[in-house]
Amino acid sequence: MNRRPAAVAFDVNETLFSLDRLARELPDGVLDIWFARVLRDGFALAATGRFRPFRELAATHLRSFIDGAEAERVLGLFGVLEPHGDVRPALERLRDAGVPAVTLTNGHAETTRSMLAASGLADLVADCLSVDDAGLWKPRPEPYHHAARTLGVEPGRLGMVAVHSWDVHGAACAGLVTGYCRRLEGRFVEGFTRPDVTGDTLGGVVEGLLALPA
Amino acid sequence: MNRRPAAVAFDVNETLFSLDRLARELPDGVLDIWFARVLRDGFALAATGRFRPFRELAATHLRSFIDGAEAERVLGLFGVLEPHGDVRPALERLRDAGVPAVTLTNGHAETTRSMLAASGLADLVADCLSVDDAGLWKPRPEPYHHAARTLGVEPGRLGMVAVHSWDVHGAACAGLVTGYCRRLEGRFVEGFTRPDVTGDTLGGVVEGLLALPA
Repeated sequence: MNRRPAAVAFDVNETLFSLDRLARELPDGVLDIWFARVLRDGFALAATGRFRPFRELAATHLRSFIDGAEAERVLGLFGVLEPHGDVRPALERLRDAGVPAVTLTNGHAETTRSMLAASGLADLVADCLSVDDAGLWKPRPEPYHHAARTLGVEPGRLGMVAVHSWDVHGAACAGLVTGYCRRLEGRFVEGFTRPDVTGDTLGGVVEGLLALPA
Repeated sequence: MNRRPAAVAFDVNETLFSLDRLARELPDGVLDIWFARVLRDGFALAATGRFRPFRELAATHLRSFIDGAEAERVLGLFGVLEPHGDVRPALERLRDAGVPAVTLTNGHAETTRSMLAASGLADLVADCLSVDDAGLWKPRPEPYHHAARTLGVEPGRLGMVAVHSWDVHGAACAGLVTGYCRRLEGRFVEGFTRPDVTGDTLGGVVEGLLALPA
């Protein structure tokens, strides 16, 4: 049975921050197919042990829908995305419990820092980590293990919280404690390693993680 | 410099067979997002060294768009997809050159056999291979190497032809000779390992592969 985590990492895009602002700037339906293709190709690279930065894949695929100057403008909006309403209560609950919260994204740490600062959430996050530091995208095990090493905890004492089934699966395969929030997908995708904790909001997931046996 | 292949493997869905029939049976825009998510999650599994069969992921994601009975009916159409117009000439050119053609799919070999039989192309294909036999999806190296072993050729003497940049990349990482057909994507996705040969049609790609130095 998995134990109460000593620190909790949160995925960033769609888990903490809404992509609605991007969706509104794009033709109907483009956000979903664009983002699915970026992840598809990032994971294809991960499956072959290769790496390209998120922004490069995001730009390449966005330019198949809109022209280059417009794509640059839309990509610039990543830094000012709005947090979901359940983020602040979840982060405050962890702070009150004395459990550090960090971010771990397939995007870039600097972009995450911008989003947190613009949303007044920076004080609630101990560190912003990115797969850039591991040179391989989630759901490969390396970035999860890199995060655990950076935090000085065993993988089995690090929680990973995401709204993406593939991220929960990757973290579970890497030995982390996992929390899945149903907000985006509605239900966990069959075929992936199931989460230790599931909730409708990030707050519910955090409560579940904190309730695990110490 | 890569050499003229002694055998050529073709990807199946979208490379040999059109998904238009499926698109017509689904609400507007669903085919693209469905297929991108199936591949995204298949590659996430591949990145963690895990495996689920294509049909299972395809069914799971299709049921997020249409009800279960309707999803089963649409999935049944995979066996009767129509070949693209450039398939027969490319396969006949290889037959005339004495170079065996096989298929290598993330889907199932039996489905491929059904499609080839229904299209009168079965005689032009020496064998139907699937990642099911390797227990890992393309673009992991294992299914490409498994195909080479099955054919009794070195990976460097096996050609891989696809309309997907990620498949060409995976084959190149596995040491195969690669041919990219621009028919689907228009241009090769930046960030992936570039093909040895590029063409607008499968026939053009085959000509390019046959023109490589022996």
